[in-house]
Amino acid sequence: MSVNRQFRLAAVPKGMPKESDFCIAEGPAPTPGTGEVLLRTAFWSVDPYMRGRISGVRTYADPVLVGDLMVGGAVGHVVQSNDETLKPGDFVAGYWGWQEWAVSKARGVQKLDPRFAPVSTALGILGMPGMTAYFGLLDICAPKPGETVVVSGAAGAVGSYVCQIAKIKGGRVIGTAGTDAKIDYLKKDLGLDGAFSYKTTTDYTAKLKELCPGGIDCYFDNTGGPISDAVFPLLNTFARVSVCGQISHYNATGPELGPPLLGLILVKQARVEGFIVTRFVDRFPEGVAQMGQWLKEGRLRYREDIMRGFEALPKALVGVLEGANTGKMLVQADWMPTG
Amino acid sequence: MSVNRQFRLAAVPKGMPKESDFCIAEGPAPTPGTGEVLLRTAFWSVDPYMRGRISGVRTYADPVLVGDLMVGGAVGHVVQSNDETLKPGDFVAGYWGWQEWAVSKARGVQKLDPRFAPVSTALGILGMPGMTAYFGLLDICAPKPGETVVVSGAAGAVGSYVCQIAKIKGGRVIGTAGTDAKIDYLKKDLGLDGAFSYKTTTDYTAKLKELCPGGIDCYFDNTGGPISDAVFPLLNTFARVSVCGQISHYNATGPELGPPLLGLILVKQARVEGFIVTRFVDRFPEGVAQMGQWLKEGRLRYREDIMRGFEALPKALVGVLEGANTGKMLVQADWMPTG
Repeated sequence: MSVNRQFRLAAVPKGMPKESDFCIAEGPAPTPGTGEVLLRTAFWSVDPYMRGRISGVRTYADPVLVGDLMVGGAVGHVVQSNDETLKPGDFVAGYWGWQEWAVSKARGVQKLDPRFAPVSTALGILGMPGMTAYFGLLDICAPKPGETVVVSGAAGAVGSYVCQIAKIKGGRVIGTAGTDAKIDYLKKDLGLDGAFSYKTTTDYTAKLKELCPGGIDCYFDNTGGPISDAVFPLLNTFARVSVCGQISHYNATGPELGPPLLGLILVKQARVEGFIVTRFVDRFPEGVAQMGQWLKEGRLRYREDIMRGFEALPKALVGVLEGANTGKMLVQADWMPTG
Repeated sequence: MSVNRQFRLAAVPKGMPKESDFCIAEGPAPTPGTGEVLLRTAFWSVDPYMRGRISGVRTYADPVLVGDLMVGGAVGHVVQSNDETLKPGDFVAGYWGWQEWAVSKARGVQKLDPRFAPVSTALGILGMPGMTAYFGLLDICAPKPGETVVVSGAAGAVGSYVCQIAKIKGGRVIGTAGTDAKIDYLKKDLGLDGAFSYKTTTDYTAKLKELCPGGIDCYFDNTGGPISDAVFPLLNTFARVSVCGQISHYNATGPELGPPLLGLILVKQARVEGFIVTRFVDRFPEGVAQMGQWLKEGRLRYREDIMRGFEALPKALVGVLEGANTGKMLVQADWMPTG
């Protein structure tokens, strides 16, 4: 019988999580019952939202408490199946967290077709981050051709997909990110109309005015903080803001203050809406089909930032929260062949 | 020929406007040309939004500059008509500002039917404030029966109509206001489920939790500031916020800071939308018909806070901004007989 390693929460982080906030627990791999499958994890998804889950408080989901298995999306390989819908060798995606082996109801996972796209994309552009970008931009901002779309955190997984979808829809797209390499990626690889680094730009307002001379019609916000504070005064009448993430605040250790935004929302008649991607779950097939189609047509590109080995998970999470990744952050199991 | 007095802006106010920020200019009453009417003002509307118009900066409309006639809605009596659609003695509503006499294109004003409702209501419950309440609540918040609706500035013109419409729609309605008399009015006369004074209540969060044990589904915001900061953390999932006014900020003399709201908007998946009532202008007939119907049925009540005499206009505006009024603030011309 194989040994199963799990990362569990060792301490509720204060501020930026540390690797020592997680600890490894070992036990026997579980045994699948009727209608269940035994899975060996191939890829773990590492995402900014995870910070909220380990904050010790209920937000839109129950928190991971100290001692609990860390949650998260994963892709795995079926090793043993007690259900006719899956067979050994199949790849599936699901939400079994930071562990090397897992048992799941067969109907609790999604069977993947490696001929359609690499299985890791089920955690990225064809998975939760992809659906977040697709529905969060198109349903909430609904950009019209020629409109100016600003995306904060543009070089992350969600942000990089949002930028490209906005371009496909005919938008003028401006992104923010944290390094020169990311800015290059946004402008040269993804074809953005403008991008700037929040780390090296001193006057965000002046830079946004320069890059958005016609004002801002849509804002897809992954970060909050000073970038958002600079965007709001430049919103055009009837602007739409999709609030997807607030990563700049996730590691705050005390109350933070900012300029009040309601007055700007009023005079610009702006609509600001927050969302959690699960609200669109019934429409995921539509999103996967469209994103898959754009991928096949070469109209969408994606990057994966892959760390190797189960043990890397906490470090990968710290990296995501520090903005170390370009594109989708994944951890790949050692047993899973590269490429 | 009659003398026409006008209030003009004498100085851009700093902070709370003073009466001396306006000055009276006298001149001959104007003469109507072809298709025009000569009007004698009976009522002037005094509204919180006027503070924004005299701030010296463009918001959603051009500012009133020093030396300009002060803008505003008014109701008047046709004294002379060069258009077949209006005759002397008719009452009309329009936007001719703070002056005793005015000339307008006949089609630039709205003919009133005094048998339908008192003509002053064209500036209140059946006019701009009424339409603001009707569309701002029903289109943007769309409260469902049994939902909890919080209204800030609930005893003002717009707020008091919003509360009653929300009750008609089956909401549980909680209001805030600034005096005990207003709280009594809200609870006893308008039948609100709860109300509290922002001046005498020390812990807004505790009071809101007590009055809204099931959380807040809809928030109609006339004030912004600390009341809004206390409301946002109590929003329920998929809450709707209609941003109508921010009177608590209108007289700010420097930058103000508040808690960031985007993170709350995100986790609650709330939709926050600002609006200016003119966007609904094509649908005003629908709103007037429905509000008029509710009035006739006794399901809507209204108060008018009337000051007498043209000279009272600046003082009335200061009063509105200080929250002195309950219901619609009007100034009535001396020549107009009391209702």
